[in-house]
Amino acid sequence: MPVDVPDKEVQAIYDLALEVARKAGVLIREAFVKEKSVETKDSEADLVTETDQAVEKFVHDMIKAKYPDHKFIGEETFAETGQKCELTDEPTWIIDPIDGTTNFVHRVQEVSFSLGVTINKKPVIGIVYAPVKEEMFTARLGQGAFCNDQRLKANSITELKKSLGIVEGGSARDPAVVQDKITNIHSILKNCHGFRAYGSCAINLCHVAAGRGDFYVEYGVHIWDFIAGVLIAQEAGASVCDPEGGELSLLRRRLLCACTPELIVQIPPILTHLDMGSD
Amino acid sequence: MPVDVPDKEVQAIYDLALEVARKAGVLIREAFVKEKSVETKDSEADLVTETDQAVEKFVHDMIKAKYPDHKFIGEETFAETGQKCELTDEPTWIIDPIDGTTNFVHRVQEVSFSLGVTINKKPVIGIVYAPVKEEMFTARLGQGAFCNDQRLKANSITELKKSLGIVEGGSARDPAVVQDKITNIHSILKNCHGFRAYGSCAINLCHVAAGRGDFYVEYGVHIWDFIAGVLIAQEAGASVCDPEGGELSLLRRRLLCACTPELIVQIPPILTHLDMGSD
Repeated sequence: MPVDVPDKEVQAIYDLALEVARKAGVLIREAFVKEKSVETKDSEADLVTETDQAVEKFVHDMIKAKYPDHKFIGEETFAETGQKCELTDEPTWIIDPIDGTTNFVHRVQEVSFSLGVTINKKPVIGIVYAPVKEEMFTARLGQGAFCNDQRLKANSITELKKSLGIVEGGSARDPAVVQDKITNIHSILKNCHGFRAYGSCAINLCHVAAGRGDFYVEYGVHIWDFIAGVLIAQEAGASVCDPEGGELSLLRRRLLCACTPELIVQIPPILTHLDMGSD
Repeated sequence: MPVDVPDKEVQAIYDLALEVARKAGVLIREAFVKEKSVETKDSEADLVTETDQAVEKFVHDMIKAKYPDHKFIGEETFAETGQKCELTDEPTWIIDPIDGTTNFVHRVQEVSFSLGVTINKKPVIGIVYAPVKEEMFTARLGQGAFCNDQRLKANSITELKKSLGIVEGGSARDPAVVQDKITNIHSILKNCHGFRAYGSCAINLCHVAAGRGDFYVEYGVHIWDFIAGVLIAQEAGASVCDPEGGELSLLRRRLLCACTPELIVQIPPILTHLDMGSD
């Protein structure tokens, strides 16, 4: 049954979300400049750091102290236990403590803290904070998207051949998955102006929101990677869907985002679609 | 016959180079936030803007006013006339007014002004200024590399499988060239932690210098794209060579840069080598 959360309460949730993001950002920035010890997860390319785990615990405790009944989906909790996500109508905080962990380990600046809040299974708050670059991206449903309080507007490109795509190699090392991703990069290179790869799903979505790229497609990401960025992109005027063209499924681990409705429909036909399972 | 330029004179050249870069950066930043009209060059992906041409003329005139006898190689001059580069022992200013023109047109922040000075065919001064990000990268032969006056040090990674590569799709649209570039991206993805693509040769070299990536390889770039970045990377401790492993040829339109001597020798065997002609 849908829950009813008054606007004032959503505002209070947003205020806490911002405070949480700022504090998480301080932890991330401090660790970024220090020597780091690293353990490996699914593959050598999928790096998890002590900071990742420490930030998630800190954030979890801070949220639970104020909202003990709210649901919490954190990347580290799910990565460790392997449990399935259950997205309910209840207010749900969905966290990626560090989006772009490979960047973090290699001292590449595109690392971010990503926090989305869903109510009735819809994102209503999205915050992506890139503390090394000091960019705070924020959005609330129906109220626009901002970077450091400056309003964001996605590009107005409508032709595929004039567009610049964002795409990633990703961390999966299954040869068939890698081959399909390479095929997609090849197709984007043939059909568009070019591609860029920054290594952070959350920041890639913010790039489209900020007009620093025209579309972004990825297979293999998780709800905690994209939930905040999706709202930020949508509130900046961008469109989001499943890479095959249907409605975005929040748990199906893949997404397509483009700056205009005209552009987004031209992208599914040039892609090889991967089924990466569900969260 | 080698020319002899006293240290004091090199210092004066450096001072002018810095002044030129700062002024060019102001022009680029102003144009970046304005509406732009674009003409196409070799292909739709290789965009040239009015700003590109205006910055080159401005810089050329400023240098010629002080050093009328110095040689000048500018990207726009050579792109327009199709003439071959002649690199002599004389002091030579080598300019790319906007490196990352596709980024510029798509409002992606990785755009830079690149200026290298060679004496006796060797780079002695390198400046890459990214005015939108307000990062000024500088290097003088034997005196280290800096970003906004902070000393740069390349990473210490020595194992290919632990490295993060930077690579580009580039602007060439010849299907055989595109296929070879895709093959290289695939190989890097299979053998390394991953790849990034930022769309600016000069900035990519600065990323390796700053430890924001472990190696960078590209086929199809020109001397004006890389001459400054090469010196900055070397002065930060990185190694530079031809992608097949021999000495870098300044006119052969291809290069490989890696953070350590141990890493750089592991990269040529995993690449398909392209011959892109010479400047």
